[in-house]
Amino acid sequence: MSSTIGTLYKVSTFGESHGKAVGAIVDGCPANLQLTEADIQPQLTRRRPGQSDMTTPRDEADQVIILSGTENGKTMGTPIGLMVNNRDQRPGDYGEMSNVPRPSHADYTYQMKYGNRASSGGGRSSARETIGRVAAGAIAEKWLSEQFGTKITSWVSSVGDIDARDLSLEGITREQVDANIIRCPDESAAAKMIELVTATRDRKDSVGGILTCVAEHIPVGLGEPVFERMEAKLAQAMLSIPATKGFEIGSGFSGARMFGSQHNDPFELKADGRLGTVTNFSGGVQGGISNGEPLVFRIAFKPPATIGLAQETSTFDGESTVLEAKGRHDPCVVPRAVPIVETMTALVLMDFVLRQAYRNS
Amino acid sequence: MSSTIGTLYKVSTFGESHGKAVGAIVDGCPANLQLTEADIQPQLTRRRPGQSDMTTPRDEADQVIILSGTENGKTMGTPIGLMVNNRDQRPGDYGEMSNVPRPSHADYTYQMKYGNRASSGGGRSSARETIGRVAAGAIAEKWLSEQFGTKITSWVSSVGDIDARDLSLEGITREQVDANIIRCPDESAAAKMIELVTATRDRKDSVGGILTCVAEHIPVGLGEPVFERMEAKLAQAMLSIPATKGFEIGSGFSGARMFGSQHNDPFELKADGRLGTVTNFSGGVQGGISNGEPLVFRIAFKPPATIGLAQETSTFDGESTVLEAKGRHDPCVVPRAVPIVETMTALVLMDFVLRQAYRNS
Amino acid sequence: MSSTIGTLYKVSTFGESHGKAVGAIVDGCPANLQLTEADIQPQLTRRRPGQSDMTTPRDEADQVIILSGTENGKTMGTPIGLMVNNRDQRPGDYGEMSNVPRPSHADYTYQMKYGNRASSGGGRSSARETIGRVAAGAIAEKWLSEQFGTKITSWVSSVGDIDARDLSLEGITREQVDANIIRCPDESAAAKMIELVTATRDRKDSVGGILTCVAEHIPVGLGEPVFERMEAKLAQAMLSIPATKGFEIGSGFSGARMFGSQHNDPFELKADGRLGTVTNFSGGVQGGISNGEPLVFRIAFKPPATIGLAQETSTFDGESTVLEAKGRHDPCVVPRAVPIVETMTALVLMDFVLRQAYRNS
Amino acid sequence: MSSTIGTLYKVSTFGESHGKAVGAIVDGCPANLQLTEADIQPQLTRRRPGQSDMTTPRDEADQVIILSGTENGKTMGTPIGLMVNNRDQRPGDYGEMSNVPRPSHADYTYQMKYGNRASSGGGRSSARETIGRVAAGAIAEKWLSEQFGTKITSWVSSVGDIDARDLSLEGITREQVDANIIRCPDESAAAKMIELVTATRDRKDSVGGILTCVAEHIPVGLGEPVFERMEAKLAQAMLSIPATKGFEIGSGFSGARMFGSQHNDPFELKADGRLGTVTNFSGGVQGGISNGEPLVFRIAFKPPATIGLAQETSTFDGESTVLEAKGRHDPCVVPRAVPIVETMTALVLMDFVLRQAYRNS
Repeated sequence: MSSTIGTLYKVSTFGESHGKAVGAIVDGCPANLQLTEADIQPQLTRRRPGQSDMTTPRDEADQVIILSGTENGKTMGTPIGLMVNNRDQRPGDYGEMSNVPRPSHADYTYQMKYGNRASSGGGRSSARETIGRVAAGAIAEKWLSEQFGTKITSWVSSVGDIDARDLSLEGITREQVDANIIRCPDESAAAKMIELVTATRDRKDSVGGILTCVAEHIPVGLGEPVFERMEAKLAQAMLSIPATKGFEIGSGFSGARMFGSQHNDPFELKADGRLGTVTNFSGGVQGGISNGEPLVFRIAFKPPATIGLAQETSTFDGESTVLEAKGRHDPCVVPRAVPIVETMTALVLMDFVLRQAYRNS
Repeated sequence: MSSTIGTLYKVSTFGESHGKAVGAIVDGCPANLQLTEADIQPQLTRRRPGQSDMTTPRDEADQVIILSGTENGKTMGTPIGLMVNNRDQRPGDYGEMSNVPRPSHADYTYQMKYGNRASSGGGRSSARETIGRVAAGAIAEKWLSEQFGTKITSWVSSVGDIDARDLSLEGITREQVDANIIRCPDESAAAKMIELVTATRDRKDSVGGILTCVAEHIPVGLGEPVFERMEAKLAQAMLSIPATKGFEIGSGFSGARMFGSQHNDPFELKADGRLGTVTNFSGGVQGGISNGEPLVFRIAFKPPATIGLAQETSTFDGESTVLEAKGRHDPCVVPRAVPIVETMTALVLMDFVLRQAYRNS
Repeated sequence: MSSTIGTLYKVSTFGESHGKAVGAIVDGCPANLQLTEADIQPQLTRRRPGQSDMTTPRDEADQVIILSGTENGKTMGTPIGLMVNNRDQRPGDYGEMSNVPRPSHADYTYQMKYGNRASSGGGRSSARETIGRVAAGAIAEKWLSEQFGTKITSWVSSVGDIDARDLSLEGITREQVDANIIRCPDESAAAKMIELVTATRDRKDSVGGILTCVAEHIPVGLGEPVFERMEAKLAQAMLSIPATKGFEIGSGFSGARMFGSQHNDPFELKADGRLGTVTNFSGGVQGGISNGEPLVFRIAFKPPATIGLAQETSTFDGESTVLEAKGRHDPCVVPRAVPIVETMTALVLMDFVLRQAYRNS
Repeated sequence: MSSTIGTLYKVSTFGESHGKAVGAIVDGCPANLQLTEADIQPQLTRRRPGQSDMTTPRDEADQVIILSGTENGKTMGTPIGLMVNNRDQRPGDYGEMSNVPRPSHADYTYQMKYGNRASSGGGRSSARETIGRVAAGAIAEKWLSEQFGTKITSWVSSVGDIDARDLSLEGITREQVDANIIRCPDESAAAKMIELVTATRDRKDSVGGILTCVAEHIPVGLGEPVFERMEAKLAQAMLSIPATKGFEIGSGFSGARMFGSQHNDPFELKADGRLGTVTNFSGGVQGGISNGEPLVFRIAFKPPATIGLAQETSTFDGESTVLEAKGRHDPCVVPRAVPIVETMTALVLMDFVLRQAYRNS
């Protein structure tokens, strides 16, 4: 396990789908930030299951508790302990899976790595693990917003074969994202996505999707080449989210098909006196360092592995069997992934800001 | 700067295109590995410039020297110091760029981050920085090969709009990769790629491309969830290579368009008695942990930023200008990126093997 | 703040004397260790205040709760969340201190470092912070004991000017240590120490002391030169405990007065077939690596800073004042430091064992 | 091996007594510091062997070469590669030791840890390893001096039973320290120390000693509780130096014998408007954080293990034997340890300064 991320804004998470609680410790948050549970709860609420027919009906309050690190509604500079109690466990739902590793799930690899695995839920590989990071990232979001007006917004840009139009230059807000249950601000595409997810759920299948994330008002100079270039660390953060299969920034894979004369972002003086770029194929990063343009990146999520459809597979012992998963499952994880992507982005950015401070002072 | 990677197999690199030398320290390499410069040199030689018309004509021997950590041709368990002297510097070639940040290059961001930048070459953002990692990764390759028969092979799968056919299941060897100068084992595609790069170079432009990498004979159980899942760490490693814009593993972005019933990899008993999967959309990773199937991933490289074509851009002071880069430039970096991708993969895998050891003992 | 320690057995702590709870996350504990709260509680109980007249009368149950990382009484290999609720806070007791930094306390430095400080208790600098580490270290103790029969025992060897006789070769047990309230197994010295602490407390003063710690049945080969030599890491761990002023191992400061011909520990074949040393001036460590002999080290604790006696000092604004601390204070911390020293030792050793595993496999 | 230290000012060292070179990489040094080899050489020259009869006659120039990270005499913000070539190796001198682990030397533990050991010199456990750190620390010294006027001075305060008078309040300078070959500014004690070392050398024995170090003009607020308290990190740094057995700060072990009413350092307004303390039993640190008073600490060094006197000991195989070491050996290491202690102190302080920057900005 490696459940700690960050050099100066250091986040360590704990907890799984069973057990008493999930949570995190945030070490390195600057002192004197106004902070109460109410600042953290909104992103947890956006993440929690049971928000719509699109997501698993498991209903949990997921109320965060600050255990330490604040006094009188302000951070002390000391570690912030964050906890969310587990409530709705129903381990019985998963009992029958024990002899059959679920295809494309973590059952087999956890068994091989640790010599055991959670008897219920997905253990540490379940989406419930992400609660700690979302809570920790929500604090980073607040601090970045207060310091720089940073605005991080993610949305669903594809579900299965349905693509939203490119919204990355449109200044999308979280209100627009949350205007529909699939969290796609292109209403026309959203309707089709919802239809697809509904049909997929009804036939006990699941479907993948893509998130786009845009982070604006980012200081110039963030990122620590060579091994912690901005895009390297964002990629690590995003691919640490369950069910992710790909990451691209700016032009991404399509940039590999371009010529330099098309792809280069020429400089120009911006209205606010800043030296900016005319285009943004770089996605806000040059040489691994933020250039002041919006960070724009996309993350691919595979279809959830747990499906109700019958699957021919094998037991741990190598015997052929048919598996039909029971229990509650998301047919599509991307709407709930939106706050996870946003808060993970905030974690990465805040750590870079703190690490850059000595160069600016 | 963050020039150290790895927890137990820890690699720290130094050096830039100017200065006396580039290199690395490898700390944590197991003792009693047979090791001389001859084991490291081949990947450096594959990486070095001047190998063909496809790459920059800068000709440097790039001979590695082991400074410490071995005795009588064996590792001691102590830090291995690795050095390659810089020889062919010609700083004058780049002199005229000083007032104009090259579009999509690191000039602007380094200036803003550090308050200075290299007057010649690309400083630490130049490809020359990668020598240290390649040398360090070549040692990891040797160790992995001896321990597990691990075989890591990368090749050029796209240049511009030209795609090779999918070779990921064909057991491609490095000999096949090196059979042509573009390092694409699909000879038909390779010919077109070479034609495209030649034409691109002739009109002083550059072009992007995609590498595929396959790593076989990987122990089950590697990867450290949650923040250092196998795919997260590979993504970080790959996007720490200059000019990269995207990473995907297994099904990648195309997996986001699939249904779970298509995408899930059913288990089956393999001929060698191992529980494997029928398909490999997972790309060798489930729950962030290697499952014993080949790791398969792809990396997108943008077209090199430095081109001879005239570009309308701006000076550091915000004044419009036209830039025509002189000097020696790669029209396409992907052939030389092959050994970089392979050795960075080895670095990541070896660190995971050492970290997993206590669980297996 | 840097509240994380360890490379593979990684412990992150949170919490202070105010706030809802204190605790820790243990990441990296091997799976399948039998573990319940009952394994952790004894060292917390030995650490807690209110055990005798020697220590502060603050009475808290300090019951540990395992929040995650175990199932059916066994560790999963996932992060173990540990929590102890705060109960007895009485912030009013400390209210009058706010304008006067307590001499030799952390009030002034926390104010200068963080721009704030806890309004009650000592915040993160209070002894209550150590609960998380003791809980985390108790798990390490159990694992080391099961794996190697490791036995770590600390006791009070000095209080003020009263020294116990040298007990480091006598195989002292925890039962002997706990046989009296000052935790000194030399009964004659213990009686004088108790008398001294009682008299000190009665005149509202405090007094310092020294702990000795012996760790037996330690595998040969632990320690990671050069910067994490065994003695370096033990020293860091010990001097991270509040109120410590010195650390010495083996001969320590007295070794600096010796000749090599006296100090060298000759090798000899031991009865159990192991190559050991005749003497142990090295304290179990040579070249920064454990040699199989018992680790023997001593830690100096200053007298507690908070005393009831009137002290002439200055306000934060530089005005002279007289301070008489009220509230509940330990006149001598060393008895309660015993389990802290033992568990911190276990943290260090366990991390080294896990890091050494790849070399032994 | 763990040859990297520091979080933001990160130093990785390599090299041993055999091999081509020793050195270090410094990653994180701020850009635009004036730096050439001439800034680094003086401390290396103070460290090198052969300076007097007090130290080993091995004569090496130990000229440092900057391999990277600077241009035009200024740091770039990129990793600084530092190298010193090995020249005078004479491996034959040590050949006869191979079957007998030298008592209190690292031969046995390296063999057990790594399954091998250097056939000549002490390998990585030899004093030659410290060259990399001294070079890296010399850069930190320069930066701290320019930023804060920081002044770090260490001297020999004891050799064997001979103690210098307490000089910690006397503003000792390096010129005073270097005024005699034993590096003790108390001339009367120095003469006796030199006499003792000479006699010790003549009878082929060795002797230990103690260094005192004072660091003045330290910013308030440095140190990262809880696990990287100032004293914890200093202790780690000092006990990572070969041959060290103890560390104490401020009152140290003698503080354990005091009452709080004696030991507490009352605050008072200083002439320069700063809130300081009347006494400095704390040694410049409260709650693990620097308080603006001088850091004062002491380090115990054991007598060198390699002596010419005959020693009864055992072979690796457990057979009794007599060992008489030949070759060149320091009879007393403390004079040469002076620059090592100073530069290691600078490493620790500079890292803390960089880590504190975000709180001050």
